[in-house]
Amino acid sequence: MPPVFPVDEYQNRIKKARQKMAEQGIDLLIISQPANMNYLTGYDGWSFYVHQCVLVHQEQEEPVWIGRGMDANGARLTTFLSEENIIEYADDYVQSTVKHPMHFVAGIIKERGWDKAAIGVEMDQFYFPHRAYVSLEESLPEAKFSDANALVNWVRVVKSDMEVEFIKRAGKISEKVMDAARNAIAVGVRECDAAAAVAYAQYSGTDEYAGDYPAIVPLMMAGEATKTPHLTWTEKVYQENEAVLLELSGTYRRYHAPIARTIYLGDDPPQLLTDTASVVLEGLDKALETVKPGVTVEEVEAAWRKGIAHSTVVKESRIGYSFGLNYPPDWGEQTISIRPGDKTVLEPNMMLHLIPGIWYDEVGFEVDASVRVTESGYESVYDYPLELFIEK
Amino acid sequence: MPPVFPVDEYQNRIKKARQKMAEQGIDLLIISQPANMNYLTGYDGWSFYVHQCVLVHQEQEEPVWIGRGMDANGARLTTFLSEENIIEYADDYVQSTVKHPMHFVAGIIKERGWDKAAIGVEMDQFYFPHRAYVSLEESLPEAKFSDANALVNWVRVVKSDMEVEFIKRAGKISEKVMDAARNAIAVGVRECDAAAAVAYAQYSGTDEYAGDYPAIVPLMMAGEATKTPHLTWTEKVYQENEAVLLELSGTYRRYHAPIARTIYLGDDPPQLLTDTASVVLEGLDKALETVKPGVTVEEVEAAWRKGIAHSTVVKESRIGYSFGLNYPPDWGEQTISIRPGDKTVLEPNMMLHLIPGIWYDEVGFEVDASVRVTESGYESVYDYPLELFIEK
Repeated sequence: MPPVFPVDEYQNRIKKARQKMAEQGIDLLIISQPANMNYLTGYDGWSFYVHQCVLVHQEQEEPVWIGRGMDANGARLTTFLSEENIIEYADDYVQSTVKHPMHFVAGIIKERGWDKAAIGVEMDQFYFPHRAYVSLEESLPEAKFSDANALVNWVRVVKSDMEVEFIKRAGKISEKVMDAARNAIAVGVRECDAAAAVAYAQYSGTDEYAGDYPAIVPLMMAGEATKTPHLTWTEKVYQENEAVLLELSGTYRRYHAPIARTIYLGDDPPQLLTDTASVVLEGLDKALETVKPGVTVEEVEAAWRKGIAHSTVVKESRIGYSFGLNYPPDWGEQTISIRPGDKTVLEPNMMLHLIPGIWYDEVGFEVDASVRVTESGYESVYDYPLELFIEK
Repeated sequence: MPPVFPVDEYQNRIKKARQKMAEQGIDLLIISQPANMNYLTGYDGWSFYVHQCVLVHQEQEEPVWIGRGMDANGARLTTFLSEENIIEYADDYVQSTVKHPMHFVAGIIKERGWDKAAIGVEMDQFYFPHRAYVSLEESLPEAKFSDANALVNWVRVVKSDMEVEFIKRAGKISEKVMDAARNAIAVGVRECDAAAAVAYAQYSGTDEYAGDYPAIVPLMMAGEATKTPHLTWTEKVYQENEAVLLELSGTYRRYHAPIARTIYLGDDPPQLLTDTASVVLEGLDKALETVKPGVTVEEVEAAWRKGIAHSTVVKESRIGYSFGLNYPPDWGEQTISIRPGDKTVLEPNMMLHLIPGIWYDEVGFEVDASVRVTESGYESVYDYPLELFIEK
């Protein structure tokens, strides 16, 4: 059970992280965001409900994994790290009110002679709560802390060719997942049974590629719930003449290919829904037309905005973000946000999830595109019709 | 789409939280842990990948929900809160590098005249990263902050009769889930296809009760991976003569009933596995025998420890915790830990998940009991045989 990628892939990622560390004057990086931990070491386990981290120091080739004792074998199985860099803390640190796992981490940092370092931590990542910071700070009085919040996230923005391949495999699964949803959703079927069919497709994957769990469970809003984007499912049965919003993803080894579509259960969708769908699809098309290396992210949003300017559709929230490797609660990368002011310049092998969702009080509409920036434009990571599905 | 429970259930919870706030000298509580937000208001949405919170003030009857604009309709649909207490922030706060949603929250706190209050925050909960704290602190210079980390979690420890009923419904689903796993797992089957069958059962639930997503995805370690507890599944096919560890749960409206068992695929399990199983089952039985009101949590662990003392089995980690309502990444409650030093006195309607897992380098074994403390002892929240399953 070796790590997912060859070791040189991880070494290349670490090298890029070190370059950013150097630019920001950071000697030692403490990473607690699970996708960042995985990205640098391969570590893959559902152990992020307790404190854990990866240390990257400028002067030590290998990162250090530190986690709960029972998870150390998980690190041995899924990372490329050597034994001296897999370090376990005792179980009585778990959810203790008298000591904190970050006290232990600080002890390791002292042992390695890194306690006077300039230390970067991920100050606004979930999985790094306030007390984690306080515990480090009080145990390492000579260290100089700075915010390295999305440092590794920004390394993740441009994907390697192997990562692209993984995302395309996830895309193959996404096609199956959306088919499964459309096959399952029908008048009289319970929402939970449709969600079950979706999950089956997500986890099973294709004959060739095993599915993995997506970082977000199926978001499936029907009827009244289509006025908001982040609800799941209930015991209710689907009704005639209601819309269903679907935000789903196939996942392959923690890599995503998000796919969102809208179904209308009936022959005669309301004018507001069809009008909205038509405007959003037009705006999405305009946005996609601009995607190519050298263009800024805010220009992509501006094209969308211009494309819908002739209509009454209003969209105040961002229309998308960068995606790829991730763990719950989000498959978004917390780097690029497709909105005014984001001046990131597009490069080949960036991955954009454009999802200009509309949630009116009367009706909602979701559709998306998950695309790779190519040398000259973009390509979708899956093949699925861009339309409002009218189904009985 | 009213909230899940009658309003007086929420009011009763809020009253208990206020009592604890008073004991700790807290005027205003800021809650960002999703289960705690749900517990006090009913709010249920997969929106916890952005910052959000619930405010509870001693002098205002209703809590305040603050979240991202697009999620406000979700709050309108799932909580009992009135319109003036559902407050949305603009989308450009999301993952911004120049402003933080907690700056907005601080503004609301000022508007309501609460900025000189004694404020309790959840300092070690995931979903409250360091920068959330810093943003509050810098915006509210006259406030006095203190740690209310598990304040609401400790209110959740004793379940209401309606919550007990929900957990038993989850238990009915857990029985189906474990059956589904046992039916699906067989030599030659891909792990991902077995995981898919498990997820189907989890989401679908029973004919009577819709399933919900568990806070932890199926943990399904096979073969070499049985030396550690928190891995998921792969594309590998199950082999003859390997063990499979299963840690699963049925879930009903965010309430869990965790269930863990071990399957051996072959006629002739290794002696170490059968010996370990026999010792663990004996120790678990001893621990369960002690469970009743008035007993301390550490006495339950001591009974386990004494029960296995005659053997070579060593267990350094806690043997369980309190469970109930939750969201990813954990169905544990971060209150009771069944280990030496936990002097919590058991009361009726506490819920304990006893899971004395063993992960040797050679072999692992998992079995559990999810029990309610009754007036005179305990009862399981589901009905499932306590044994090592030998299957072909």
